[in-house]
Amino acid sequence: MTVFDSLQFGDIKRGPQNLITDVPGVRVGHCTLSKGDIQTGVTAVIPHEGNIFKEKVLACAHVINGFGKSAGLMQINELGTLETPVVLTNTFAVGTAVNALIKYSLQRNPDIGLTTGTVNPVVLECNDGFLNDIRSMPVGEEHVRIALETASVQFALGSVGAGMGMSCYGLKGGIGSSSRLILLDDSCFTLGCLVLSNFGSLSDLTVLGKKAAPEDRAESSDKGSVIIIIATDIPMSDRQLLRMCKRAVNGLARTGSYTSNGSGEIALGFTTANRVYHYSEKHILSQNVLHEECMDIIFRSVSDSVEESVINSMLYARPATGRAGHQRRALSEMI
Amino acid sequence: MTVFDSLQFGDIKRGPQNLITDVPGVRVGHCTLSKGDIQTGVTAVIPHEGNIFKEKVLACAHVINGFGKSAGLMQINELGTLETPVVLTNTFAVGTAVNALIKYSLQRNPDIGLTTGTVNPVVLECNDGFLNDIRSMPVGEEHVRIALETASVQFALGSVGAGMGMSCYGLKGGIGSSSRLILLDDSCFTLGCLVLSNFGSLSDLTVLGKKAAPEDRAESSDKGSVIIIIATDIPMSDRQLLRMCKRAVNGLARTGSYTSNGSGEIALGFTTANRVYHYSEKHILSQNVLHEECMDIIFRSVSDSVEESVINSMLYARPATGRAGHQRRALSEMI
Amino acid sequence: MTVFDSLQFGDIKRGPQNLITDVPGVRVGHCTLSKGDIQTGVTAVIPHEGNIFKEKVLACAHVINGFGKSAGLMQINELGTLETPVVLTNTFAVGTAVNALIKYSLQRNPDIGLTTGTVNPVVLECNDGFLNDIRSMPVGEEHVRIALETASVQFALGSVGAGMGMSCYGLKGGIGSSSRLILLDDSCFTLGCLVLSNFGSLSDLTVLGKKAAPEDRAESSDKGSVIIIIATDIPMSDRQLLRMCKRAVNGLARTGSYTSNGSGEIALGFTTANRVYHYSEKHILSQNVLHEECMDIIFRSVSDSVEESVINSMLYARPATGRAGHQRRALSEMI
Amino acid sequence: MTVFDSLQFGDIKRGPQNLITDVPGVRVGHCTLSKGDIQTGVTAVIPHEGNIFKEKVLACAHVINGFGKSAGLMQINELGTLETPVVLTNTFAVGTAVNALIKYSLQRNPDIGLTTGTVNPVVLECNDGFLNDIRSMPVGEEHVRIALETASVQFALGSVGAGMGMSCYGLKGGIGSSSRLILLDDSCFTLGCLVLSNFGSLSDLTVLGKKAAPEDRAESSDKGSVIIIIATDIPMSDRQLLRMCKRAVNGLARTGSYTSNGSGEIALGFTTANRVYHYSEKHILSQNVLHEECMDIIFRSVSDSVEESVINSMLYARPATGRAGHQRRALSEMI
Repeated sequence: MTVFDSLQFGDIKRGPQNLITDVPGVRVGHCTLSKGDIQTGVTAVIPHEGNIFKEKVLACAHVINGFGKSAGLMQINELGTLETPVVLTNTFAVGTAVNALIKYSLQRNPDIGLTTGTVNPVVLECNDGFLNDIRSMPVGEEHVRIALETASVQFALGSVGAGMGMSCYGLKGGIGSSSRLILLDDSCFTLGCLVLSNFGSLSDLTVLGKKAAPEDRAESSDKGSVIIIIATDIPMSDRQLLRMCKRAVNGLARTGSYTSNGSGEIALGFTTANRVYHYSEKHILSQNVLHEECMDIIFRSVSDSVEESVINSMLYARPATGRAGHQRRALSEMI
Repeated sequence: MTVFDSLQFGDIKRGPQNLITDVPGVRVGHCTLSKGDIQTGVTAVIPHEGNIFKEKVLACAHVINGFGKSAGLMQINELGTLETPVVLTNTFAVGTAVNALIKYSLQRNPDIGLTTGTVNPVVLECNDGFLNDIRSMPVGEEHVRIALETASVQFALGSVGAGMGMSCYGLKGGIGSSSRLILLDDSCFTLGCLVLSNFGSLSDLTVLGKKAAPEDRAESSDKGSVIIIIATDIPMSDRQLLRMCKRAVNGLARTGSYTSNGSGEIALGFTTANRVYHYSEKHILSQNVLHEECMDIIFRSVSDSVEESVINSMLYARPATGRAGHQRRALSEMI
Repeated sequence: MTVFDSLQFGDIKRGPQNLITDVPGVRVGHCTLSKGDIQTGVTAVIPHEGNIFKEKVLACAHVINGFGKSAGLMQINELGTLETPVVLTNTFAVGTAVNALIKYSLQRNPDIGLTTGTVNPVVLECNDGFLNDIRSMPVGEEHVRIALETASVQFALGSVGAGMGMSCYGLKGGIGSSSRLILLDDSCFTLGCLVLSNFGSLSDLTVLGKKAAPEDRAESSDKGSVIIIIATDIPMSDRQLLRMCKRAVNGLARTGSYTSNGSGEIALGFTTANRVYHYSEKHILSQNVLHEECMDIIFRSVSDSVEESVINSMLYARPATGRAGHQRRALSEMI
Repeated sequence: MTVFDSLQFGDIKRGPQNLITDVPGVRVGHCTLSKGDIQTGVTAVIPHEGNIFKEKVLACAHVINGFGKSAGLMQINELGTLETPVVLTNTFAVGTAVNALIKYSLQRNPDIGLTTGTVNPVVLECNDGFLNDIRSMPVGEEHVRIALETASVQFALGSVGAGMGMSCYGLKGGIGSSSRLILLDDSCFTLGCLVLSNFGSLSDLTVLGKKAAPEDRAESSDKGSVIIIIATDIPMSDRQLLRMCKRAVNGLARTGSYTSNGSGEIALGFTTANRVYHYSEKHILSQNVLHEECMDIIFRSVSDSVEESVINSMLYARPATGRAGHQRRALSEMI
């Protein structure tokens, strides 16, 4: 039993792996670049096994603090659908990841740009410039392809993929994940969360209500960010997904965040329960949604699993040395 | 055949009455106060024949220009539902109309405030202060009740109800309405529009592409507003209703509007096709929505019927004299 | 020294009274109705000593969760200004408070509705229906007037004014307040917070990181709400005020909130530093704003003082018995 | 005198060139790719002569219809500033243009990513896939550099730069521009507009109120878009810039638009009057803004100049043949 297993975030039952991939069909892949001043990478979240462009999933994005450079959110919120995998990477790799996702989609869909419209690549980012030489723009399209092609229901946490170079609360951050099981109308559903953690100052870090470090406000200002992906197979409308995403901030706040000026914070949610087919013979489609009175169990699950994901992104992270000899300790060394 | 019938706004077929009440179940009622300096009133739009609180309709509100004092929009957009009739009146009667709608709802629902939560009254307004002594706050709760109780599928246009004291493009404005028939999956649906017109300067007025008056910019600045209600029985999600409402501005622009600073402009849309029951035994509900590719016919219908509703609000209006001898001519006198 | 004084929320220095009225010019008044089944009231926050309509203050409102019936927020966000005092009361008293604020403004401004436009009354609300017979609508315009007329830099906390009938975390809630001192460019500024607390379940209540009660999830679902007013004399733009308001949720989360479905949560912020005169001879005005890099101290102050205000709203509240014998214990009885 | 000069859009005086570059400091550059199936390009708008990252301009973006893939808007709206030139290109060149803008910024700012944060590249797009083989992704970073480096106060309209492959109302579209002169407090200011037009069906095209073509609804559905850049030297807040941008839709509507489902429509506005320095010794800054009552002349100017820019984008465009022999006629051939 690890330190991590002994921590309990709320009283809602976890999924079997306690990972976002507990949501059926969801897979996660990484490509990690870690050599000297280059400490960065790519993480891909794939919503289902089929052709995402042809079978879109209902989705919504919520901007907690818009100091960030993510791509693709505008169309998600206009149309309520996600039509590519979601790629996470460093801030200056967004353009390259956009190109890679376009080519990924073109390869699978010969109609795009010819007989139908274009495609909306979704790329979310944090700035890993403390440990990574972000100016050298080391991420290539091939790294995005590797993350997409190696996606699996099993995946590593901590200093891996897009999380390789990230810092959280002055310590090493990275990829965290967690899941919850939710019973509705006698069926069991899953809600899973994945975070890319890269925000905060050590003196603020709070683990299950306790400050983790002595007071020390001598740190430089927060230039971080955090990305939160919430996947579920619960049938919801895109409006309900937005309400779900808005609760992510509660989980962040419990870990000590006050949402600093420089921290780009975005929550993106999708449900695999409502597919929207690119081509449809019928004009009128049937969708399942939740009665609004059932949202509380979802809101609790999001708050708890975001909190847990941030903390486990740090617990699984290894200490790291990167650009210009910059170092980050790991939370596991401190508790 | 009236002047009005000879005008054609777009090429989509009108409903049988060319009124918002062509949408099955929708009714409209007026209470008009017209005596000396008091030129105002109330108009109520009732979405269906049942208990609106217990059988809410999917709804959305879009703020074109938020220089206004309407009540109830925030909750509509959070929950995607409308749970009272919609009341239109003058700016300083909003509080009174809110009270009247609360009492209307309490009377029909003994559970509100006792065993269930509260209710969200929706009141939209324009400032009729040019013709009406708005400072005297002449609208009482009884006038709201009359508008609600007399609602019918037949209703008057022009200088009536909330439209009694309104001015539009420097002429007499008021209540306009129009409807369109839309075929989807071999079924015929209806989209209906009702406007409360109270904006613009005469030199801008444009009827079917033609300026209606000689250039004259000597008018005082626009302190007006316009309210647009769009009802339909087409199954849509609340996000789709929002997209629909966003097209109302096209109809306004065609009549000459540049959306002046002082003009509070709001579009509220609802569909009677998706009911949300206040009490539900099931957590998961089924809703019909449109495939997004079908939205264009709806967007055209909104643009055309809003344009038509504004123009017919003016064509049906009678010349009026009100507060301090202020006068408004009617458009029908000019063409 | 009270229990309250011994609690420390963050390390930023409090203002002299630790009240929102530490911000120069800000005053708060209450009118309390407490008799049998009637447990409700009105609280007014007045931004400065002058004529608010003629000297508007820059303001912004942020909707955390829009399950609520507040009035006036749309225009605040369109124009970036507040032009009346802010009134807090119960959900079904919003219409009456709107009427009272209109009359308050008409009395002080003979030009409104005659030679200039109308006025935007701002009323925020929570549902006190557990302790109060909200259906009987006991709040009258005279109660609003009393709250406005008795406003002072000294005011009571807890079970008073709009807070009389409110419940928070299953205990007695009500009015809380707190302030922080902030140094910018060698000048000392004040940020003050006032909350009307009425949300949450006892098992979630967290005081400075510690759960305050044994686990017990048997409570009924949350029909509550919370209103947060943030006043400051720091020069900010309305966009910066919005960013400030968005941090209020961090303070709520620290007290245990997951932002339940039924809890209408709104933060309204204003700065007394930038006045906008209703009449201006000049087209171009000068405003002071903050360099964005200075926002973090404000964001910390908001997170800390909202947390503190919620907890002190409960610590100052007295146990209460109201409608149908419903009872709420006080937090002070439990610690 | 050209056909174009004889058309009058509103009665506000045009700037000397009737181009967006009438706003002092603003420059525009193009790079055009036109060979066989490749009909595309890049257009860059540079807000001032200095280092944009170090001297940001106040800015705001408004999404009319979010069916689009533009980059950088989220941060503009969070922080109210633009810190790179604005690049326009085709939908699948956004990633490449993002990369080029990052490198452009890194080259000019050795501190980015090292001692300060990152940079927010702004790239707006339309889908030129009807005339251009968009799947082959022909735009390279060098083309973006050329557009940036050749930017000038003189620039071509019509089938040029990002406009090379665009279609508008079933005819050839592209780059349009127009400007207006506005007097405030006895000083003369300029508002300039640039559009990338790529939307609409021929049967809807309306020039100064008149339908330009016989009714014909046999066209394929609109997969277009339109980008609108509004530059000015009028001092405004970012909120006022947002209000300004929201009026662009009026100009589009006058040309016949109903804002189709597939048309991504974005208006981005900036003012050169309020610079925000990346590094500031002072916390508190002074900005000039407008009294809100002066906005109407700006709203009229935007409505008129967007209408004019769309029409002149078509009047200056040449007939074109592109991908798979697809052809577009020019509006100048029809009138």
